[in-house]
Amino acid sequence: MQLIETKESQNYLDLAKSLAKEFAQTAVERDAQGGTPKHERDRLRQSNLLKLIVPTEFGGLGQSWITVLQITREFAKVDSSIAHVFSYHHLGVVIPHIFGSAQQKQRYYSETIHNNWFWCNALNPLDKRTTLTPENDYFRLNGIKSFCSGSQDSDILPITATHQETNELNILVIPTQRQGVTVHDDWDNMGQRQTDSGSVTFENVLVYPEEILGSRNKANQPFNTIRACLTQLNLANIYLGIAQGVFEAAKTYTSTNTKPWLTSGVESATQDPYILQHYGKIWVDLQAAVYLTEQAGELLQAAWEQEWSLTAEQRAECALLVATAKVFATKVGLDITNRIFEVMGARATSAKYGFDRYWRNLRTFTLHDPVDYKIQEIGKWAL
Amino acid sequence: MQLIETKESQNYLDLAKSLAKEFAQTAVERDAQGGTPKHERDRLRQSNLLKLIVPTEFGGLGQSWITVLQITREFAKVDSSIAHVFSYHHLGVVIPHIFGSAQQKQRYYSETIHNNWFWCNALNPLDKRTTLTPENDYFRLNGIKSFCSGSQDSDILPITATHQETNELNILVIPTQRQGVTVHDDWDNMGQRQTDSGSVTFENVLVYPEEILGSRNKANQPFNTIRACLTQLNLANIYLGIAQGVFEAAKTYTSTNTKPWLTSGVESATQDPYILQHYGKIWVDLQAAVYLTEQAGELLQAAWEQEWSLTAEQRAECALLVATAKVFATKVGLDITNRIFEVMGARATSAKYGFDRYWRNLRTFTLHDPVDYKIQEIGKWAL
Amino acid sequence: MQLIETKESQNYLDLAKSLAKEFAQTAVERDAQGGTPKHERDRLRQSNLLKLIVPTEFGGLGQSWITVLQITREFAKVDSSIAHVFSYHHLGVVIPHIFGSAQQKQRYYSETIHNNWFWCNALNPLDKRTTLTPENDYFRLNGIKSFCSGSQDSDILPITATHQETNELNILVIPTQRQGVTVHDDWDNMGQRQTDSGSVTFENVLVYPEEILGSRNKANQPFNTIRACLTQLNLANIYLGIAQGVFEAAKTYTSTNTKPWLTSGVESATQDPYILQHYGKIWVDLQAAVYLTEQAGELLQAAWEQEWSLTAEQRAECALLVATAKVFATKVGLDITNRIFEVMGARATSAKYGFDRYWRNLRTFTLHDPVDYKIQEIGKWAL
Amino acid sequence: MQLIETKESQNYLDLAKSLAKEFAQTAVERDAQGGTPKHERDRLRQSNLLKLIVPTEFGGLGQSWITVLQITREFAKVDSSIAHVFSYHHLGVVIPHIFGSAQQKQRYYSETIHNNWFWCNALNPLDKRTTLTPENDYFRLNGIKSFCSGSQDSDILPITATHQETNELNILVIPTQRQGVTVHDDWDNMGQRQTDSGSVTFENVLVYPEEILGSRNKANQPFNTIRACLTQLNLANIYLGIAQGVFEAAKTYTSTNTKPWLTSGVESATQDPYILQHYGKIWVDLQAAVYLTEQAGELLQAAWEQEWSLTAEQRAECALLVATAKVFATKVGLDITNRIFEVMGARATSAKYGFDRYWRNLRTFTLHDPVDYKIQEIGKWAL
Repeated sequence: MQLIETKESQNYLDLAKSLAKEFAQTAVERDAQGGTPKHERDRLRQSNLLKLIVPTEFGGLGQSWITVLQITREFAKVDSSIAHVFSYHHLGVVIPHIFGSAQQKQRYYSETIHNNWFWCNALNPLDKRTTLTPENDYFRLNGIKSFCSGSQDSDILPITATHQETNELNILVIPTQRQGVTVHDDWDNMGQRQTDSGSVTFENVLVYPEEILGSRNKANQPFNTIRACLTQLNLANIYLGIAQGVFEAAKTYTSTNTKPWLTSGVESATQDPYILQHYGKIWVDLQAAVYLTEQAGELLQAAWEQEWSLTAEQRAECALLVATAKVFATKVGLDITNRIFEVMGARATSAKYGFDRYWRNLRTFTLHDPVDYKIQEIGKWAL
Repeated sequence: MQLIETKESQNYLDLAKSLAKEFAQTAVERDAQGGTPKHERDRLRQSNLLKLIVPTEFGGLGQSWITVLQITREFAKVDSSIAHVFSYHHLGVVIPHIFGSAQQKQRYYSETIHNNWFWCNALNPLDKRTTLTPENDYFRLNGIKSFCSGSQDSDILPITATHQETNELNILVIPTQRQGVTVHDDWDNMGQRQTDSGSVTFENVLVYPEEILGSRNKANQPFNTIRACLTQLNLANIYLGIAQGVFEAAKTYTSTNTKPWLTSGVESATQDPYILQHYGKIWVDLQAAVYLTEQAGELLQAAWEQEWSLTAEQRAECALLVATAKVFATKVGLDITNRIFEVMGARATSAKYGFDRYWRNLRTFTLHDPVDYKIQEIGKWAL
Repeated sequence: MQLIETKESQNYLDLAKSLAKEFAQTAVERDAQGGTPKHERDRLRQSNLLKLIVPTEFGGLGQSWITVLQITREFAKVDSSIAHVFSYHHLGVVIPHIFGSAQQKQRYYSETIHNNWFWCNALNPLDKRTTLTPENDYFRLNGIKSFCSGSQDSDILPITATHQETNELNILVIPTQRQGVTVHDDWDNMGQRQTDSGSVTFENVLVYPEEILGSRNKANQPFNTIRACLTQLNLANIYLGIAQGVFEAAKTYTSTNTKPWLTSGVESATQDPYILQHYGKIWVDLQAAVYLTEQAGELLQAAWEQEWSLTAEQRAECALLVATAKVFATKVGLDITNRIFEVMGARATSAKYGFDRYWRNLRTFTLHDPVDYKIQEIGKWAL
Repeated sequence: MQLIETKESQNYLDLAKSLAKEFAQTAVERDAQGGTPKHERDRLRQSNLLKLIVPTEFGGLGQSWITVLQITREFAKVDSSIAHVFSYHHLGVVIPHIFGSAQQKQRYYSETIHNNWFWCNALNPLDKRTTLTPENDYFRLNGIKSFCSGSQDSDILPITATHQETNELNILVIPTQRQGVTVHDDWDNMGQRQTDSGSVTFENVLVYPEEILGSRNKANQPFNTIRACLTQLNLANIYLGIAQGVFEAAKTYTSTNTKPWLTSGVESATQDPYILQHYGKIWVDLQAAVYLTEQAGELLQAAWEQEWSLTAEQRAECALLVATAKVFATKVGLDITNRIFEVMGARATSAKYGFDRYWRNLRTFTLHDPVDYKIQEIGKWAL
């Protein structure tokens, strides 16, 4: 399947691969440290890749989600924290497009390009502790928001907050530097350690009316709800990238480090029947995940291009395939990141290799929302 | 993915679906009986679908393998024995094309159309008991061949036999009715019961030089070995069709027959959280299998179209994806045909429904060649 | 673990093994036929093994449930239909003991010995279509009962019926030959084909007050509910026996029939690394199932011996371990009966071997009650 | 099953549980630090539990392996590094008994008690870089040994080294403090981080003849090879302990922290059908592992008690059950430590809980020797 159709998108992919190679050098060390990958974020800023999804009419690169997701997956292969903040940037960039007015769409796209903004995510709709209170001609934002991936070192914050009068969950976008906003350095998790997915507090933060995009829960049109598809397919791609990454790393290790077992009767680990079996099974699962995920990507891009003419049925078809891809990548990825050690052996557990980080990252990120209920939804649809 | 691109191929698919519906009526009964599905074979003859793969220049329908495999899968959903004999017909039709001279290709394609031949399979290269002995200007064929699917009621037999002088394994094609050929009614298996995959004996059967296509083991060009890909992907499609078939059958059953369990607290089985979970998981696996199998189909068709300009590398890439699809369909199919009873309940085991035939058919057919060694091959390649 | 502690119980086990060997000769053929294993039932009658669980004070053999279940498992290894009717006999024999008065216990135990009765099962409490109506000094039984295992050729029928005045579900026991009772020959299933688990109809059948044991749903004491443990552990033993049986059968087949695969590089199938792997994995699972099931058997026997002094807590502990053993045997058994074909190869699917019957029998019988809800119950307890 | 039969062994178990509770307080923190659990090692020294396996005639506590393994498992539930060094101490204590003369057995048992020695492990027979060279009336030890668990802070070192003249792999025992011995602080792994399983170098270390126990590879009697059974069953117990530990930790977390999912329709996470399902499945697997492991423990203790009268057949039976238990604990443990997050949710990935350490520890330790070849061995035996 030829997903990258243009010479241009191929160039961006090559650029991403080259950055990924660079990030790989320090990935184990940075995983141990946690915190903000400031240097790598700046490299992303310099690379121009933050402009991928912005339409050319606003000065962006006008690339498709297919390209964005493919590049995200490349990063996930070596460092899923980078993939995380990189992709949530893109999921942030399009928020005014999806939820805002035409004017807001134009304004935020243009300013993103103009300022080379790095977006992040402070939407977490399950955390209702943030409120928006009218005050004269503007609003005041107060409260706290958890799981704000990429908020450290970000330029601009998309936030959900409950409007104190309408009781609706509004989406708004403000600069991270605005007075009263405090991004906390309180993310310390077993995985996805450099995603800065900690909390942000808001103390009487000034919000202008034009910074409020609309209500998250009042989706008048199918396109209003497409961000859930984007988010979920982004997860699938990162999960898959992690699995592909550990597969590649293991291949190198088996070929160069693993010794054949005493009673195996073979001369090299690469001839061991059980090691070959593991590689065969993993390959099969990976291929199935790849095609499923890419198929979903094509459908999602088609849906995205429909924009406001997207029908509820098309949106549903897209959501189903995206959910399917995500569930499959979850299952396959958890299995691979766990099982892969069998093809490497005991010495591969040395901390210097950091091979456990693939599982820790995936295990952490696959809990984003419960896979059991995603499967249930799919089951309802299937039945 | 839009695999059926033309109006014409859609028509054939519709025709096949209509036939499948017809075959479904008697599938349980015929499974119990075993033997030859003579009536259904004649319906296939009448349908013109035996001409699908023959190029239009020889009077055929000029369809792609994509269409042939898709139709095979449709049949497999309701009756994998019919899918078996139908597809092995097509795998037979192209034997002179792959292994013979240009003249032989033309002759057999033309005669197939002219006589509306129903081909079968007597190639089993693992069974070496058949010999070809030169005698004057012709040859004599002697011995026995096992696993000759579709040989009963067939018109023409492709056979492998060891040339007594060169010791090569030759492929030859002779009419089933030729003197000395006896098709035995000795197929009685736990599954694929109407495939007539029994033995054929040859007693001093006359074979003309022009009926000998060449040596099976002396593949001079990559295209010579493409039939293995065709066979393996055909298996994948039948395995997948069986899994899809039982899924559809179960859906109907759950919706109409299954009662909610005492302690489930739900009003209908279709709301049961565990039943939904089973359906969700099965759906995910099925979708992954579908995309993988269809992707392999596209690659295979592309390889087929390369014909003699097919490179070894292209052939290898195709073989890998085909093997991957087959292994995945095997795993998923065995799991689904086994697990599916959980969503139906105890009363679904009544013989009248014949729901066990899906598992019996699949379990039988997936032993065609050991999946463990297919996985090993893939592992070698992956590593 | 030495479960059979006495010389005597060892003798019964040896006798059962010898009978099992005999039954094995015709098991494939009888599976194909379905219907009543009349000859085998009479051999069981002659063997005295129907008297195993009856206490010696009533003329019985006074054996433990450990011995009964072990013998049931021996039968299940070769013919799970025989194991089914044999074990439901024992589950029937103790019904008056569990649900009846001391007098009823004595009467039915004694008569069982005196008449060498073969009990069966017509209790199915989920089927509420049978009613018990007072008429003068006696009662009239009407309606229909499904899933009446072993009812054909049985001597005595334990039945549940709804008392028309109290609306309670009463248990009663009447001779199969009583006027108005019709045992239907309507069991035709994909598995457990010789269990006669069809329907029985009752037309104005006379029932004497002393034949009514008590209310099934009014369990005043923990011992009243012990039959559920007996039934469930009996299922676990039969499931396990089926798995052990196919394992033994496969071992013989692999050693004598299976040929090493072309590319395996080994001289015999018994050296194939993947075949060894399958056997190793299956062995591990089987051993785990064996110890779990036997442990549950010891606990159950201890509970049985407590009789009316059994506490609710002891009963619960026993039920939990029994449920655990059953869930585990279900999972392991379905996996083994499905996977076992991998170690035998394509020719093992010939109908003459009947290797599919293990899966068909297990698949059928494991639907007795939904494993999903058994797991849920265990989960509730565990949490 | 009542494995702890005496009041005394129950007391030791209670003591161990109390220590485990203490160790649990700092387990997450110490896992992050790595290095030597000096404080905890001293607590073990004070507890007298290092004397458990030493026979009473030498001043020891005279406990069985059943008790030692059960206590090891208790430690593994909260801190598998502690369980590791604690159990390898016991595996070390008995080395002179198994491999040495009667005199050596007496001497080392006595000195262990007298000095309250903490043993460790420097045997790794796969690492052949250590040599033993005769020099006058004594020997010189040179080289390096890897994977020397518990060597830091140990009192006495059991070592394997190749005798330069006989070329045999000798086992010798010397004080850790002897001149020329350097225990390196170079263990930095993804799991089992406080086991000090780094390297030890030997520079011209003086070894007295009476410190050499015999040849490891020249096993004249079955009892000579029993340490492999001890080691393997010790692994099984630690694997199982880890799985039981995470299960207990998760139960607490689910009950107190996990919130019901939006669409679950239940009021608390403990009523969620999928969470109950996970707990049910995990419980079933854990129970199967527990009984298998305990059964193996009983067999091993019986074998141990046979001492020099142990037959090859008894040893083989024991080894088979031990291998079976270990393979099962490996499979079940890896599954549980991975899957358990599903019942806790996203917030459970916070580093403060350290829930990933169970998987990291188990994944590391289960690579001790390849499970694939253990399964193969079992398969050979089974077939």
